[in-house]
Amino acid sequence: MLGAIEAGGTKFVLAVGSSPKEIRARHSIPTADPATTLAQAAAWLASQGTLTALGIGSFGPVELDPTSPRWGHITNTPKPGWRDCDIAGFFRERLGVPVGFDTDVNAAALAEYAAAQANGCRSLAYLTIGTGIGGGMVQDGKPVHGVGHPELGHIFPRRHPLDREFAGICPHHGDCLEGLASGPAIKARWGASLSELPDDHPAHAIIADYIAQACHTLFATNAVERVVIGGGVAKTPGLTERIAERARELGAGYLPGSARQTIQRPHHGDDAGITGALMLAMQAQAN
Amino acid sequence: MLGAIEAGGTKFVLAVGSSPKEIRARHSIPTADPATTLAQAAAWLASQGTLTALGIGSFGPVELDPTSPRWGHITNTPKPGWRDCDIAGFFRERLGVPVGFDTDVNAAALAEYAAAQANGCRSLAYLTIGTGIGGGMVQDGKPVHGVGHPELGHIFPRRHPLDREFAGICPHHGDCLEGLASGPAIKARWGASLSELPDDHPAHAIIADYIAQACHTLFATNAVERVVIGGGVAKTPGLTERIAERARELGAGYLPGSARQTIQRPHHGDDAGITGALMLAMQAQAN
Repeated sequence: MLGAIEAGGTKFVLAVGSSPKEIRARHSIPTADPATTLAQAAAWLASQGTLTALGIGSFGPVELDPTSPRWGHITNTPKPGWRDCDIAGFFRERLGVPVGFDTDVNAAALAEYAAAQANGCRSLAYLTIGTGIGGGMVQDGKPVHGVGHPELGHIFPRRHPLDREFAGICPHHGDCLEGLASGPAIKARWGASLSELPDDHPAHAIIADYIAQACHTLFATNAVERVVIGGGVAKTPGLTERIAERARELGAGYLPGSARQTIQRPHHGDDAGITGALMLAMQAQAN
Repeated sequence: MLGAIEAGGTKFVLAVGSSPKEIRARHSIPTADPATTLAQAAAWLASQGTLTALGIGSFGPVELDPTSPRWGHITNTPKPGWRDCDIAGFFRERLGVPVGFDTDVNAAALAEYAAAQANGCRSLAYLTIGTGIGGGMVQDGKPVHGVGHPELGHIFPRRHPLDREFAGICPHHGDCLEGLASGPAIKARWGASLSELPDDHPAHAIIADYIAQACHTLFATNAVERVVIGGGVAKTPGLTERIAERARELGAGYLPGSARQTIQRPHHGDDAGITGALMLAMQAQAN
């Protein structure tokens, strides 16, 4: 049996399955301090029978360099208590199984990539628009790590003409993508979530424009074939269509792969992350 | 002996070498119509002795999908006569050798990556700022293709506060990066090249800002460890330093790999493209 953890800032989603396609049982625990949370997660996983491998998709920043002694750690997060937490090492020792480890968004991108591969897709980005904005990318079956990992929420979109006043809420960059288009940034300007605002409220076009700029950037920098958009904000009815339309305008049909480039909702819905974590477990088992 | 072609819009650079590190002879011909240019290139290469493989780094857009019948073609370029030109097929048939093929900027990125690998670098982007703006990327030794190939010149930087009036010269996007910061865009605003303008001219900060935004975007989307900046405009004294300083401001020390991320001039100088084409030849020989 494979075990999986989607380690988020507010909750840990746990699952076991015989394969990434078959989740047998799942459980969720609130994210408290590391000692409590990791012990609870390990106890639930151990109660599910014999595991052969574990996959973890974690909130970041994390260390992904396999040659680093800090591989598998959450690194300099501002989240109290979690800085320098050796999350992969904890479970490897406690459960005695090989551990696959990546960012939560790279795990989600892996799961969406596997689904898209059936249609010949070879490159995919996964964006999550929620409390924060993050993203992962898979090229030819492998998650993009680079030196560290992508931080897609921190690119700078052009300001929308109807959104010149708001300073943005990112503590590092002010009006980067996360500072402008995350759930809390939407609430800070308009006092409501995007789906609570009426259909003709300018917020819909403004937020769609910012996310479309991110999609255009991914099309231009990586020629990704598909951008999948998940997370709470992305559930706003009509938003994906607005984003796709605006991204088409921005690209103006110029990019070499544009006829095949699409923007979509997750095939796995809210299960992209945990499904990807099961894939990380499967990879760890094979290595 | 390996043969190499850096196929540009204004000239074809040709070379032969026993390895990418050793160019034995080189030649350059102006880019005219395809029939003339390709025949001249083939004649020079054939005159250099027996070739075992050829590498081509080409201006784009090109077809890089090895499963496509149009692999190795220049596709929908506006350059008269060159649309749908089967450049790889021409040389494979004429010279009877295996042909490696990629964009000119991916070839340059491959060469710079090979040089950077000695320092442990695993991900690199190559940007060229000249008549146009283009870029290539290498992750874990492989050029990024996606569906098509990157078109890094066509992302949208934020407009600099001192550069609000100029509409940009990109026929597709107006004020995308290429429309704002390429050599012709600089000439269109200020009537001179960047290196001809005095040190205290605002153009230096404006252009550095646009290119720094592209670097920040590559750091955030791909966590590339190094951005190498080549091309004519990049030779402006002091520009690389201005770009690096502005990119540091934009990142605000936030990105996980930022301590290791650098912006540099090409290790191979003007030979990055042709050296990369020799590497493509070597790969074609091995396959």
